[in-house]
Amino acid sequence: MTHGHASRGGASTALLTDRYELTMVDAALRDGTADRRCVFELFGRRLSAGRRFGVVGGTGRLLSLIRDFRFDHEELRFLRDEKVVDAATLDFLEGYRFTGSITGYREGELYFPGSPILTVEGTFAEAVVLETLALSVLNHDSAIATAAARMSVAAGDRPLAEMGSRRAGERSAVAAARAAYIAGFAATSNLEAGRRWGIPTMGTAAHSWTLLHDTEEDAFRAQIDALGTGTTLLVDTYDIRRGVETAVRIAGTGLGGVRIDSGDLPTVAAEVRAQLDELGATGTRITVTSDLDEYAIAALAASPVDSYGVGTSVVTGSGTPTAGMVYKLVARQDSDGGWVGVAKASTDKGSKGGRKAAFRTLDEGTATSELIVVSDGFEALDTGASHPGARPLQVALVTDGEPDAAFEGPAGVEAARAHHARVREELPVRALALSRSDPAIPTVYADARAAGMIAQPAVASGAE
Amino acid sequence: MTHGHASRGGASTALLTDRYELTMVDAALRDGTADRRCVFELFGRRLSAGRRFGVVGGTGRLLSLIRDFRFDHEELRFLRDEKVVDAATLDFLEGYRFTGSITGYREGELYFPGSPILTVEGTFAEAVVLETLALSVLNHDSAIATAAARMSVAAGDRPLAEMGSRRAGERSAVAAARAAYIAGFAATSNLEAGRRWGIPTMGTAAHSWTLLHDTEEDAFRAQIDALGTGTTLLVDTYDIRRGVETAVRIAGTGLGGVRIDSGDLPTVAAEVRAQLDELGATGTRITVTSDLDEYAIAALAASPVDSYGVGTSVVTGSGTPTAGMVYKLVARQDSDGGWVGVAKASTDKGSKGGRKAAFRTLDEGTATSELIVVSDGFEALDTGASHPGARPLQVALVTDGEPDAAFEGPAGVEAARAHHARVREELPVRALALSRSDPAIPTVYADARAAGMIAQPAVASGAE
Repeated sequence: MTHGHASRGGASTALLTDRYELTMVDAALRDGTADRRCVFELFGRRLSAGRRFGVVGGTGRLLSLIRDFRFDHEELRFLRDEKVVDAATLDFLEGYRFTGSITGYREGELYFPGSPILTVEGTFAEAVVLETLALSVLNHDSAIATAAARMSVAAGDRPLAEMGSRRAGERSAVAAARAAYIAGFAATSNLEAGRRWGIPTMGTAAHSWTLLHDTEEDAFRAQIDALGTGTTLLVDTYDIRRGVETAVRIAGTGLGGVRIDSGDLPTVAAEVRAQLDELGATGTRITVTSDLDEYAIAALAASPVDSYGVGTSVVTGSGTPTAGMVYKLVARQDSDGGWVGVAKASTDKGSKGGRKAAFRTLDEGTATSELIVVSDGFEALDTGASHPGARPLQVALVTDGEPDAAFEGPAGVEAARAHHARVREELPVRALALSRSDPAIPTVYADARAAGMIAQPAVASGAE
Repeated sequence: MTHGHASRGGASTALLTDRYELTMVDAALRDGTADRRCVFELFGRRLSAGRRFGVVGGTGRLLSLIRDFRFDHEELRFLRDEKVVDAATLDFLEGYRFTGSITGYREGELYFPGSPILTVEGTFAEAVVLETLALSVLNHDSAIATAAARMSVAAGDRPLAEMGSRRAGERSAVAAARAAYIAGFAATSNLEAGRRWGIPTMGTAAHSWTLLHDTEEDAFRAQIDALGTGTTLLVDTYDIRRGVETAVRIAGTGLGGVRIDSGDLPTVAAEVRAQLDELGATGTRITVTSDLDEYAIAALAASPVDSYGVGTSVVTGSGTPTAGMVYKLVARQDSDGGWVGVAKASTDKGSKGGRKAAFRTLDEGTATSELIVVSDGFEALDTGASHPGARPLQVALVTDGEPDAAFEGPAGVEAARAHHARVREELPVRALALSRSDPAIPTVYADARAAGMIAQPAVASGAE
């Protein structure tokens, strides 16, 4: 069963994929390992740049993109013409649909080093080919969501608008607007984000609007004629003091707002507030939009600013444009059909084998640890099992190949935003500081048997 | 006239746009300024992060996206439902096609502070709405191209492969592969970049491939069965020394290559080369792929490495994920139909009014300056005019609304790559250093009249 938006279907996403995913499938089909049941895990080894928490972004987008992960005529022709895979693999890909299951963190959830953000179960062939797409979406959107959450913390009750589309690839810009909204922004300038994801859109005028007109006065008057006195006028094209004077003269003291896009913002904001108040425009709001990041926003906390517009820094993850998550095989069937936990041993890039169940332990509502219960790979874990004083973090996202439509589309975005606001409340106060530090809570590993978490005997399903 | 790929038409790009572009059109249609002829310029005020040159990326993509910039039923319905613009503006948008002209730097060309990378001429309404899309594409792709060119310089004759799709938004990843290729990379792991843009694709196997198998030996044997002994085996899943030994034992001394994805690369590469040579695999190539950027590549110049795979750093612009270009009104008609140069006066974000013609001055083939000849706004400039010892930098990209298809599609990519290789040869040696510095050549402004560059009397075309 699929819902409206999800079932419509878009362009194939199957080639948004690294070539080696398909050549591995090709080799696995030859040597009989393609059907081995596997568990892949998507996680981050660390939080980037001394961040104290991460925010999961992109899950809802990924589910819809998995629906569109199919090899149609054009994709198959390219793979054949380029001799990427052989004829048997082309046949396999032609019939490909992901039929496995994905559990994971809800979008908007917080994550820490080692959090099993996604757990993908299926045959090797069907699960490995999702690697590139899953990482592209989660790495990008989580980087934006994490930066946006820090800005949202810094802004407190003042609304934030995302307006960085021009500083991001044209499609990533839409995803960035969505991720920022989930993490606490109030609106975006990006119209496609409004259309596709139901995010409130906003915007006023550019400097070119003022320059188009013979005088600043003409420009302000025309904008007010079109948008009403509640609009926000951009007052820094020529001289801010003169701009504010003209704005109030034209619009009256009921002017909605003024926008300042240059200068030393704490100084300028204070001057503009004083001028507006002198002119009687005590209700006119001040929006600032010049090269803001979470630190600049925090530095304006004591300034008379009413709202912030953030561009470059939020869409580029404020110095961390990718979350650095990886997608690793952590358990698989062996040739006898039994399960083994597996892990890469390299010193600097090791991974932890085995299935994981994740919980956030809480003390009177405040998070104390990221508890990750590890099966040694032989058992299935009941990730919903009650664990005293702990909140289970994983939910079913895809069951037998079918994404849960509740996480997709505009409704999924609203749910993620609400979930983020709720779980952010669990963070200890130290998590909200902006300086570089360790993760706000430690990641604690526990053995599944010791924790009494073995839910059921392992069932070796599938071939062999 | 349009070529095959270009005329096929894709999804509408019209809502990849900031809301204020459309509300400005709405207001301009009301006050009669919508039809004023305007000149917008896309340029960068500075090179980011002490880069010595920039590389223009995205132009060919932008031309195709402009072809698809149209307001269809779904776009119009959203704008109406959300009350973004009024009924008259909806009518205007329904009939919207860009009918103006765009001149600019060829894709792959170098740029410097103030270079007029795009000059967009048309009515205010038709030209202003392209702002967000043009900046999204050029800012993203130029950031990648610039970083990639530095890596290409650092790598010298050793081939570079782009394999960062998983660290970029899923559609930006395709654009990043394209930009890296234009700036000197030899191949990409991204299959869609191969299909859409004709870029060579490459790839071998992941750690999961080794972990899927009961032994590393099984994994290597299966890969060789599928891809031949010319393939590249990933040798660092467990122990590199053992991995190399196993690889040569299975494949023989004719093994194509080994890939190392972890460890201290200069040390490990030297050890692996010595081991391969001892085993008689003197022709087996070493590829390294672990967190490389231009500095790490340069540090490996003396190491026995044959090729590089670059991920995160190239797709995120190696610390500069956006080029910071802006799109500014520089000249327009006044209410009498005459032309005036216009510029924003803000202290830290000023712009230079007037039309520009750009040349790279050369001394015996080596660039000496970016010469920008500025009209005061009243005249048209002959940007192709011969200027002794200088290379004109602007070409016609869109004429009367019609993009030049030669710059689009795979052919456009190859042309841009060839152009980049050619013009990079003009750079002075100091431009090729990686450390932070000033731009490699100064930007020099000259007055059009003084330079004898006035091509023809200004013709005030259009309304009024």
